[in-house]
Amino acid sequence: MLKEWMNPQKPEPEELAERLGAARERLARQQMQIKEKKLPVLVLVEGWGTAGKGSIIGRIIKNIDPRFFTVAAMEEPTEEEKRKPFLYRHFARIPEGGKFTFLDSGWMDEVVKERLYGGMSDEDYEARIGSIRRFERQLTDNGYLVIKFFLHISHEEQTKRIEKLWDSKDTRWRVSKDDMWQNEHYKRCRGAFDSYLRSTNLPSAPWYIVDAKSAKWAELQVLETLTQGIEIALNNSSMAVPLLQNVFPLEKMPLLAEIPLDKTVDIEEYHKELKRLQQRLGELHNRLYRKKVPVIVAYEGWDAAGKGGNIKRITGALDPRGYEVHPIASPEPHEKARHYLWRFWTRLPKTGHIAIFDRTWYGRVMVERLEGFCSENDWMRAYNEINEFEKELSDWGAVILKFWVQIDKDTQLYRFNERAATPEKQWKITDEDWRNREKWDLYENAVNEMLQKTSTTYAPWYVLESVDKRYARLKALRIMIEDLEKVL
Amino acid sequence: MLKEWMNPQKPEPEELAERLGAARERLARQQMQIKEKKLPVLVLVEGWGTAGKGSIIGRIIKNIDPRFFTVAAMEEPTEEEKRKPFLYRHFARIPEGGKFTFLDSGWMDEVVKERLYGGMSDEDYEARIGSIRRFERQLTDNGYLVIKFFLHISHEEQTKRIEKLWDSKDTRWRVSKDDMWQNEHYKRCRGAFDSYLRSTNLPSAPWYIVDAKSAKWAELQVLETLTQGIEIALNNSSMAVPLLQNVFPLEKMPLLAEIPLDKTVDIEEYHKELKRLQQRLGELHNRLYRKKVPVIVAYEGWDAAGKGGNIKRITGALDPRGYEVHPIASPEPHEKARHYLWRFWTRLPKTGHIAIFDRTWYGRVMVERLEGFCSENDWMRAYNEINEFEKELSDWGAVILKFWVQIDKDTQLYRFNERAATPEKQWKITDEDWRNREKWDLYENAVNEMLQKTSTTYAPWYVLESVDKRYARLKALRIMIEDLEKVL
Repeated sequence: MLKEWMNPQKPEPEELAERLGAARERLARQQMQIKEKKLPVLVLVEGWGTAGKGSIIGRIIKNIDPRFFTVAAMEEPTEEEKRKPFLYRHFARIPEGGKFTFLDSGWMDEVVKERLYGGMSDEDYEARIGSIRRFERQLTDNGYLVIKFFLHISHEEQTKRIEKLWDSKDTRWRVSKDDMWQNEHYKRCRGAFDSYLRSTNLPSAPWYIVDAKSAKWAELQVLETLTQGIEIALNNSSMAVPLLQNVFPLEKMPLLAEIPLDKTVDIEEYHKELKRLQQRLGELHNRLYRKKVPVIVAYEGWDAAGKGGNIKRITGALDPRGYEVHPIASPEPHEKARHYLWRFWTRLPKTGHIAIFDRTWYGRVMVERLEGFCSENDWMRAYNEINEFEKELSDWGAVILKFWVQIDKDTQLYRFNERAATPEKQWKITDEDWRNREKWDLYENAVNEMLQKTSTTYAPWYVLESVDKRYARLKALRIMIEDLEKVL
Repeated sequence: MLKEWMNPQKPEPEELAERLGAARERLARQQMQIKEKKLPVLVLVEGWGTAGKGSIIGRIIKNIDPRFFTVAAMEEPTEEEKRKPFLYRHFARIPEGGKFTFLDSGWMDEVVKERLYGGMSDEDYEARIGSIRRFERQLTDNGYLVIKFFLHISHEEQTKRIEKLWDSKDTRWRVSKDDMWQNEHYKRCRGAFDSYLRSTNLPSAPWYIVDAKSAKWAELQVLETLTQGIEIALNNSSMAVPLLQNVFPLEKMPLLAEIPLDKTVDIEEYHKELKRLQQRLGELHNRLYRKKVPVIVAYEGWDAAGKGGNIKRITGALDPRGYEVHPIASPEPHEKARHYLWRFWTRLPKTGHIAIFDRTWYGRVMVERLEGFCSENDWMRAYNEINEFEKELSDWGAVILKFWVQIDKDTQLYRFNERAATPEKQWKITDEDWRNREKWDLYENAVNEMLQKTSTTYAPWYVLESVDKRYARLKALRIMIEDLEKVL
């Protein structure tokens, strides 16, 4: 990219000023349309040290109302962030619909540095490039405008800038160690940048190389490219994108109708076993805390299937400082305004911790599908997006357990009626539950498709037969123990 | 890709038959919608030798009316094709809107073979991958549905198939040398396939790996993916795509208004020089014929600027067996129904030949832009698409000369009036010419933008000052001679 890239012709000062004025006005106008159309705009500004990333962002945002944008400067990952998957802090920063996020360097900077002097192996680098390509593709597939700039200056220019900053005590602090290292190893860095730019130059999220020698001229290049990209995105209303082939190893799952639900457990046996299993899980919890293994437990199932009680038996065994339960309801407005996985990315556990989700990201292919909250292309794409999401977690080292809590239609009716008749349980049963029940067959269909398409070897689904809730609880505990023992 | 790819679960025979029936019907229905919406569908079927590429295409097309599809089997390039650029024969085969083209292997097969045992260098291979990515991106950007299948069989399965074919005299001929070679070097081939698949796996034209062990099952995978892709494409009406940054080396061009038009040549001097230059060009024509250098000359300019007369002075010097003049008018329906560059790709000269275009592919950014024959995104994208096109020609070894024949508005008026008043010249002046003249300023603007954005070092624009037509003719000859001398 850098080798091919040709310095566009810098206009004369008069023309430059004129075009700058026009581009600034255009951006100011566009911010309102962006808001109206709820377009999320992610602007990634990468580039050489001292190329002026921060200053260019400063110039651009002058044209935008502060309510409509955020600027995030990439820092070294915090201790907290280091205990999350690589993409976590990047995913967490994506804008909501109708707003801009400007990133003063981002995932490129992080990965290339690790490659250049962080001791990252070629294999890990390739894997990271894969993650990044999937990440950016997921954003654009889900309607994000992703615009990526690389601010380019020559070796000579960088040297000059560093020397100038160094000359004065007031500015010396602005020369970072990274800048110095880059300058000393300019050619090697250029090679690494180049290879990164090439392998992440996606048609839907292409790179733009900016001649950053003159600040105004750089601003013009960024503004004109940005406003052009925005215009194109504004004109594209919901567009469908190709569905990708599954590349993840799937486990064969039975259809729900094929699963016998007559399994029970004797009540005495239950109490004895519960105690034994909980004690064992408690031990394992300590061990995974020490070994820093993150664990993600996902619960889905029919209304009144017994998810809550099942989760309680798990958490009953755990040290409260080491787990969190996330009850998932309809998304809040600020969550709905972002990629549907955002609210799950931001709720991931730290290494050594357990996160339990009471309902999950699988809402996309169940309720959102059936209630028409997303387009057909959206939910059909979601199987792959979710497999990619869980692969990211698995590659990070997480143990992922997914439970489908299964009952039959009659059992549900019985429990609904029981809830309705029991004053202290009435809050548990709503009109929506009854309405969902009417769509049982549609849901069963959707659940079957979900189980077939997302039960990967690294994040398998387990069906918990929960007509006898106690049976289901013991089974959940046993599976969890077994899976944890494998990694501990 | 092949390593990651997971064999999807083959359904039981009953389900398979049912789904096959449904998918076939769906495709049969879709062909009418494809016709209505004028969607062009390019289906590339690649894969291992004996994987059944031909047979699967045979099964698929049974569901489509023969008027709506073409099947092309990739053969070794003919001697004629070898004298064209690599992409020529592939570009020539793209379907028109509303129709399918099925390719029984294509550019993948060609490139991977050359890499495996054609002695292609890594560098050439990388360049070819670049060409292919640009080619496929140009197709999808211009509204093509491109679906790519790779039929996969295991080493064991391939061995079995080859042995079986070999066993009978009636089928032995079907085992090709390539099949044998592949089978002997299965692992090496798999590596080469894998690397190709990865580097051409574009989000807008992704690869689908098909488990080709069972013919019916393979048919189902292809049919379901194909019909799904078609449905998505049918639902997307004209969508705009990001404009890519220029990566080609540009030459600084003056604005038309800055070019002095007072250059003239004495008539005696003209005749003397014309004779001398034509003789020289004639010699060079012989030489480039022997050296097999292809030459492409593109003429654009104002109506009545003198393009025709200028071209005559060039062709007057050439051996008629070694050149062709292509007058370019509005596209015919079958041309309009394809990528706008198709009618130029198919008119390229052979090596050693000269093709002269009287009006060109630049119509996209002049008349098509100004008359609204394409969308704004279309013509804005075209500068890059054209630079890519000419780069492809230049990398192939072509000399590319582009002449803009320039006059001022008064000269045009004078010539129009003269034509109108001269009976034998009246055919040369139409109402359209007058209408275009009214848009002079808009055209001037568009021409200036075109000259700025497409005057690359490998395919520069030359302005021919043609108020004195004789001056312009000599200048064209001189430039052509000079540029040819550089390469001969």
